Amino acid sequence: MITPDEIQRVLAGYANHELTVATVGSHTALQILKGARDEGFRNLAVCRHGTEQVYQQFGVADEILTIGRYQELMDGTFQQQLIVRNAILIPHGSFVEYLSPRRIENELAVPLFGNRAVLEWESDRVKERAWLLNAGLRLPLEFTSPEEIDRLVLVKFPGAKGGRGYFLASSEAEFAQKLENLNLSDKAQFTIQEFVIGTRFYPHYFYSPLQDRLELLSMDIRYESNIDGLARLGALVQDRTPEPSFVVTGNLPVVARESLLPKILEIGQSVVTASQELFSPGLIGPFCVETICTDELDFVAFEISARIVAGTNLYINGSPYSHLLYNEPMSTGRRIARELKDAAELDALERVVY
Amino acid sequence: MITPDEIQRVLAGYANHELTVATVGSHTALQILKGARDEGFRNLAVCRHGTEQVYQQFGVADEILTIGRYQELMDGTFQQQLIVRNAILIPHGSFVEYLSPRRIENELAVPLFGNRAVLEWESDRVKERAWLLNAGLRLPLEFTSPEEIDRLVLVKFPGAKGGRGYFLASSEAEFAQKLENLNLSDKAQFTIQEFVIGTRFYPHYFYSPLQDRLELLSMDIRYESNIDGLARLGALVQDRTPEPSFVVTGNLPVVARESLLPKILEIGQSVVTASQELFSPGLIGPFCVETICTDELDFVAFEISARIVAGTNLYINGSPYSHLLYNEPMSTGRRIARELKDAAELDALERVVY
Amino acid sequence: MITPDEIQRVLAGYANHELTVATVGSHTALQILKGARDEGFRNLAVCRHGTEQVYQQFGVADEILTIGRYQELMDGTFQQQLIVRNAILIPHGSFVEYLSPRRIENELAVPLFGNRAVLEWESDRVKERAWLLNAGLRLPLEFTSPEEIDRLVLVKFPGAKGGRGYFLASSEAEFAQKLENLNLSDKAQFTIQEFVIGTRFYPHYFYSPLQDRLELLSMDIRYESNIDGLARLGALVQDRTPEPSFVVTGNLPVVARESLLPKILEIGQSVVTASQELFSPGLIGPFCVETICTDELDFVAFEISARIVAGTNLYINGSPYSHLLYNEPMSTGRRIARELKDAAELDALERVVY
Repeated sequence: MITPDEIQRVLAGYANHELTVATVGSHTALQILKGARDEGFRNLAVCRHGTEQVYQQFGVADEILTIGRYQELMDGTFQQQLIVRNAILIPHGSFVEYLSPRRIENELAVPLFGNRAVLEWESDRVKERAWLLNAGLRLPLEFTSPEEIDRLVLVKFPGAKGGRGYFLASSEAEFAQKLENLNLSDKAQFTIQEFVIGTRFYPHYFYSPLQDRLELLSMDIRYESNIDGLARLGALVQDRTPEPSFVVTGNLPVVARESLLPKILEIGQSVVTASQELFSPGLIGPFCVETICTDELDFVAFEISARIVAGTNLYINGSPYSHLLYNEPMSTGRRIARELKDAAELDALERVVY
Repeated sequence: MITPDEIQRVLAGYANHELTVATVGSHTALQILKGARDEGFRNLAVCRHGTEQVYQQFGVADEILTIGRYQELMDGTFQQQLIVRNAILIPHGSFVEYLSPRRIENELAVPLFGNRAVLEWESDRVKERAWLLNAGLRLPLEFTSPEEIDRLVLVKFPGAKGGRGYFLASSEAEFAQKLENLNLSDKAQFTIQEFVIGTRFYPHYFYSPLQDRLELLSMDIRYESNIDGLARLGALVQDRTPEPSFVVTGNLPVVARESLLPKILEIGQSVVTASQELFSPGLIGPFCVETICTDELDFVAFEISARIVAGTNLYINGSPYSHLLYNEPMSTGRRIARELKDAAELDALERVVY
Repeated sequence: MITPDEIQRVLAGYANHELTVATVGSHTALQILKGARDEGFRNLAVCRHGTEQVYQQFGVADEILTIGRYQELMDGTFQQQLIVRNAILIPHGSFVEYLSPRRIENELAVPLFGNRAVLEWESDRVKERAWLLNAGLRLPLEFTSPEEIDRLVLVKFPGAKGGRGYFLASSEAEFAQKLENLNLSDKAQFTIQEFVIGTRFYPHYFYSPLQDRLELLSMDIRYESNIDGLARLGALVQDRTPEPSFVVTGNLPVVARESLLPKILEIGQSVVTASQELFSPGLIGPFCVETICTDELDFVAFEISARIVAGTNLYINGSPYSHLLYNEPMSTGRRIARELKDAAELDALERVVY
């Protein structure tokens, strides 16, 4: 494992006023790159062959390094290329997925924005659930056995990629039948989770350790295929309704009823506080708690993303909430760069980079 | 009842260039406070204990007064605190709900932006319907008795809070069965309204009496729990579909087909004209007509909100429509402050404050 | 037919620095007019009686010419009025629908932004399909006979206006029954198209011939009546579900998962390249490819609009994507004006006006 000391040694060799904000070209890289530039940083995108055109076409990258497979980023010589540029890597969902939390912890010597320990807490379902419960959030019920199914449930498989292969069931019989029909190599491991019905809200928080302040920057709703196409057909396809899938394809903007904001801010704050107890110094920077709002105006949290989420792409030029906080267009990507700039100016990069 | 003369006497004692824009901390207070500040006013939020943090955290309030229950705002001593600050209160949905239209009319001596008489016309279902009919709008059919049900209807109960307890029915039998199962203390009073199927549009208008001008500032769609979660499941839960509820939890942005704008502006204008005939000087400032657009491109109006609506929270930094009208980011909250500023400069506050 | 030479002769008589950007008052005229003004052009709206108020009320037009029927625009004297003002007409969906592609090609001597030959390729279903196939896009399957129906299909009639009269069917029997019940004078001609289930994305592209550059400016989802109201009811109306209609009433904002952008840009580029082969100089300016994203993250293209689309009305003040490309709020309407300005400065109007 790369120890915090090793990272700090790398960081000690950096020229504080010539940092490069770097990220992998995918997920939220466009806003991270633009945000870095808006805050006065040089930036860099690491792209897989065939995706670099997006970053060229939008003109947001100062430099693009192209690799054949994402894993090549882990090569010692490639890491050195980043380090000589005084690069700080900004992790995002694809970054973590492509490189794996374990390899990042064990092999990545390039300084990362945020607390690297969070990757493990986010990606391990048991730890994630412990964290959210520790924060006092209401979670969907989980059933340990199909016999217990007494309401609509979502059945998830760790082997199912990106929401395909999940299925809904309302009874043990339906569960058994759908499991049998399921085309998946490893069906033995599954989670049976209550499917809470309500409106979805994915608030985008930012926790600044420098200011000890939680900010609500924006929120979104995921736009998923095929469920959001299927739903539109309603009862029209009732005889031959295909099983829905939940593959994220985009995001839709939303604001919450203002009287719900105290609860939403409280959720964010309690997650930060719990993280500081569980893995000091806890969460740093952007995160999202995926919630359902019931018709009793209760929030049920079913997931946490402990880094920038894709829904922030809606707000590259700011959101209704960020415009209250800042007099400039403040995306989450730019907010990360702002925190880095503040840290560099205070000579306190070690408080936000691990 | 507080007479217009009494309000004008209070107003006469105000220092016109040291006004405070005040509102209750909920609903649309964030944009009202920010908008007031953007227009050069001092602002103030009246918050119930436990909600003030939202207004602190977003940093939009110059002063926060905290009370235990919203009704304390009506106390004579509290009202005096507002009056000594030259406060003009901006009413919004929660404000009206918490304090009740009757108490506001009878007991609130603090000047209010807008025509106070509108509160009664908006909150009394019979008067509201008369107003909309007078404006020539197409309304959903109402059935006086369950036997008449010949299409999908929505059954509403005045005792049902915020959209819970409403139910849908397609026949007298379905009505009878659902009424019997309904868990509500007062089921005797109900309204049976045609459920019009089409796309929902909630245009946000602003009528300026100073310029005798109607503006279309933005529009939204309400995001309701559990209906918007339930809908997503389509036919998937057909065996055990729970009854939908219509609790507003947030708002979604939308624009209308440009060829529909003549109709949408006409709806707004006819509502203003009717209001001037029914309760002179009529509507002042922001309002919304909740509509459904059928597939024949007809608008059916099912409600009017004669004050700022929550959907405007989407447009704290302006909307596609407001950007046509103004070269600055113009939220409805800011537009209110702009009208107050214009009135103060013309020494004509009595034309917009009652 | 009006030949390119005739248009170039008209254009040669224009004062390059006193051009007027003109359009028909509907569809996307608000942003076209505002965009023209933002780029320093004088502008003009041609309105049908009864719609001019919209353009007056939003204050975006320098001049409004009012006519009784849209076809009067074709009158020689009216065209002369436009030509003496050095007018360049910006075509949009309603413009093309009101005047008909054929009449525009044959009778309109006023210079048009874009390649006039595109109108025919876009409006003729056979040519449109050939174009998209030539670009290598995946299209929905088409069935030549009802017996072939083996999945959910959408049945379209050329005589059905704006999405009404279309119907869904899952079998030959359902097709036969619905066809019989259909209230349409000409039912003999129809298209049977696979109804692809997934999320809808309508990317708004702009191809600049001056820079030989493709830009992704924004994207939207259509908001259609009654389908989007019906869908909300899900299984609730299953006994008496009315047949859905697909009348566009508005638009909803969306962003795509960033890892889908390479594919989305590729779709736009391949459509441009194919157009250059099929009808040189090919597509110029704004266009949209209407797509469905499946849960395998494949895009199925079911239509092309080879001019500005209504969904761009969401982004009158810019979109998340346009803010990456431009440091100013860049609507598609303004982007058109920018291209005209660039062409005028290069004395190369003939490269973008036909």
